[in-house]
Amino acid sequence: MNILVVSDSFKGSLTSSEICDIANSAILAVIPQANVKKIVLADGGEGSVEALVLNTEGSFHECIVTGPFFKKVKAVYGILGDYKTAIIEMSSASGIMHANKEELNPMVATSYGTGELILDAMKKGCKKIVIGIGGSATNDGGLGMLQALGFEFFDEKGDAVGQGGQALINVRSISSTKVLPEIFDLEIHVACDVNNPLIGEQGATRIYGPQKGGTNEMLELLEKGMINYGNVIENTFSKSILNYPGAGAAGGMGAGLLGILNGTLDSGFKLISDLIGLEEIINSSKFDYIFTGEGQINHQTLNGKLPFGVAQLGQKFGIPVIAVAGSIDKGFEEMYEKGLTSVFSIINQPMVLDEAIINAKDLLYQTYFNIATLINKSSK
Amino acid sequence: MNILVVSDSFKGSLTSSEICDIANSAILAVIPQANVKKIVLADGGEGSVEALVLNTEGSFHECIVTGPFFKKVKAVYGILGDYKTAIIEMSSASGIMHANKEELNPMVATSYGTGELILDAMKKGCKKIVIGIGGSATNDGGLGMLQALGFEFFDEKGDAVGQGGQALINVRSISSTKVLPEIFDLEIHVACDVNNPLIGEQGATRIYGPQKGGTNEMLELLEKGMINYGNVIENTFSKSILNYPGAGAAGGMGAGLLGILNGTLDSGFKLISDLIGLEEIINSSKFDYIFTGEGQINHQTLNGKLPFGVAQLGQKFGIPVIAVAGSIDKGFEEMYEKGLTSVFSIINQPMVLDEAIINAKDLLYQTYFNIATLINKSSK
Repeated sequence: MNILVVSDSFKGSLTSSEICDIANSAILAVIPQANVKKIVLADGGEGSVEALVLNTEGSFHECIVTGPFFKKVKAVYGILGDYKTAIIEMSSASGIMHANKEELNPMVATSYGTGELILDAMKKGCKKIVIGIGGSATNDGGLGMLQALGFEFFDEKGDAVGQGGQALINVRSISSTKVLPEIFDLEIHVACDVNNPLIGEQGATRIYGPQKGGTNEMLELLEKGMINYGNVIENTFSKSILNYPGAGAAGGMGAGLLGILNGTLDSGFKLISDLIGLEEIINSSKFDYIFTGEGQINHQTLNGKLPFGVAQLGQKFGIPVIAVAGSIDKGFEEMYEKGLTSVFSIINQPMVLDEAIINAKDLLYQTYFNIATLINKSSK
Repeated sequence: MNILVVSDSFKGSLTSSEICDIANSAILAVIPQANVKKIVLADGGEGSVEALVLNTEGSFHECIVTGPFFKKVKAVYGILGDYKTAIIEMSSASGIMHANKEELNPMVATSYGTGELILDAMKKGCKKIVIGIGGSATNDGGLGMLQALGFEFFDEKGDAVGQGGQALINVRSISSTKVLPEIFDLEIHVACDVNNPLIGEQGATRIYGPQKGGTNEMLELLEKGMINYGNVIENTFSKSILNYPGAGAAGGMGAGLLGILNGTLDSGFKLISDLIGLEEIINSSKFDYIFTGEGQINHQTLNGKLPFGVAQLGQKFGIPVIAVAGSIDKGFEEMYEKGLTSVFSIINQPMVLDEAIINAKDLLYQTYFNIATLINKSSK
């Protein structure tokens, strides 16, 4: 029996790699002759760097960069086994994890460190940059990132505008003269599973500003700044970005990445699964079952999350896809028509979340064990 | 695909009959051509009367009898479709459910009402009595039951000893002269899944006395009484009962049922499954899968509980047995070698027990649905 295990992490509890190993042990305990292929994967969020580096025999690179609130932070990105593709998680340099809740301030927070990572990768020979943009602390439209790459932003007097979301309102012109020309040759892919535009009620500021510490007053100023900044970019680079779906992700990083650096947005799952050739692996391996999962299976899973992508690949090649999740909540049911065969939670009795997290390894093992005993009997 | 659903109730939440119906709906939603046989069953505990009456097209009989604390209570027992076999749950007449916690008192509590039910069944023509003995409020060694049937118990002066556990210490002789002779022709089977002897550290009083309201002082007196009472029965009827495994169940009911009425003890599952011919049904029906379950699967399940019995029948006939439980706890794992294929909990995320009970129907449906989708894909 050929089995593929390709699960996202259970955030705060189990990594994708741990899940693969536990699933493997449980399946082999029941079906010793099973051939289990483990693929550590993520869908653009936490764990994406690790997943891609592991799968392509790439390398990890550590940099000291400017954190979102100007303290130096240690950030890690990956270069894939092709030596030409970098995978960067924006949160590693500019994420909310680098600040206490009290420090969070979207007027101030800068994406500068993410730009430093891009620069470092480019200097190491990378031609293609894949950026995961979850968990950022910023609402600066990518201003800081662009500044790190050499772009200059001036106000109406021709002075530098400074940094952070508060600077956006003053931007009148943009200069590329100090930018390394190779920057414009980079192929940039942004892993993005949301459709928020740069501005407006569903835009970067209104939707994500509050969780980054934005007060109503700040959000008012930031929204005005983002409109101004987006207009200057549109006029300078002749690109439509203000209402482009996804441009509002990660505090408007799309404005800089799409509007100035010619990046493209794609589903995180699609980008990452393409980089490791997941579809080709599934097509060529004649798997009898595919196991997938994530911490929570719910309505959001349909927005291009890993189990959804895996289910669709299973459907394409006629392979049953079984999801094992930390928890299951309403709204995912459409997945049954999109390739999901079954979904099981690891929770085996009434318990609180902390208990589930503490016992996650045992619970996951038991769940895989019981599914394995069932498919073992059923397939005979 | 032929599927059997035979699950115990989830106590306090879902009846066996509800579980059968929900399982049936979920399975047919996935596999419309499935042939689902539902068997409402119990293993001697709560729901046993309903299960046997339903399965044999028998009848329910309501009696007003003496409750454990001498108030009249309404009790129900069943007569099977053969018109000759009665199924009595002792708790219906003499159970703790008939008393507040403050009223509980094993010195006083009587099993008289259970005797009245036996008498009623006998008068309706029953030759065989099956008694489930869970949930009793009594520790009277069956004294009250025997008194209801006409037995007389005298103290050293030749006076009647009275009722309840407190009377046991005074018993010196037993008279059967007022007992209807048909009583001795009854075939009595006691559904019993515990091995406690009548007396001693593992006996009726020490193990079950505390949960029936017994204080240390009471337990001391009750134990002495039970030793005396057991000795008188042994001497009068030439039966060994003091240390007979199971004689201590239900406050020593075994003393009366085995020692005086020539009853036999059997596993509740075995008794009840024999009465409905479960083994023959399984043997002749070529089921592809058997679904079973109970509220809690844990180490106690191995003590002859329904899912254990069903697993063993599945093993005997080579049919996969899938258990669906309210919750799963340690200690049941030996069941994998005794016929259990898989076990799944209906709990699908961290939650408290009340939440699980409120949502039990939906959760059960989802669990059966997901197992059905899996076996449907696996069996193709």
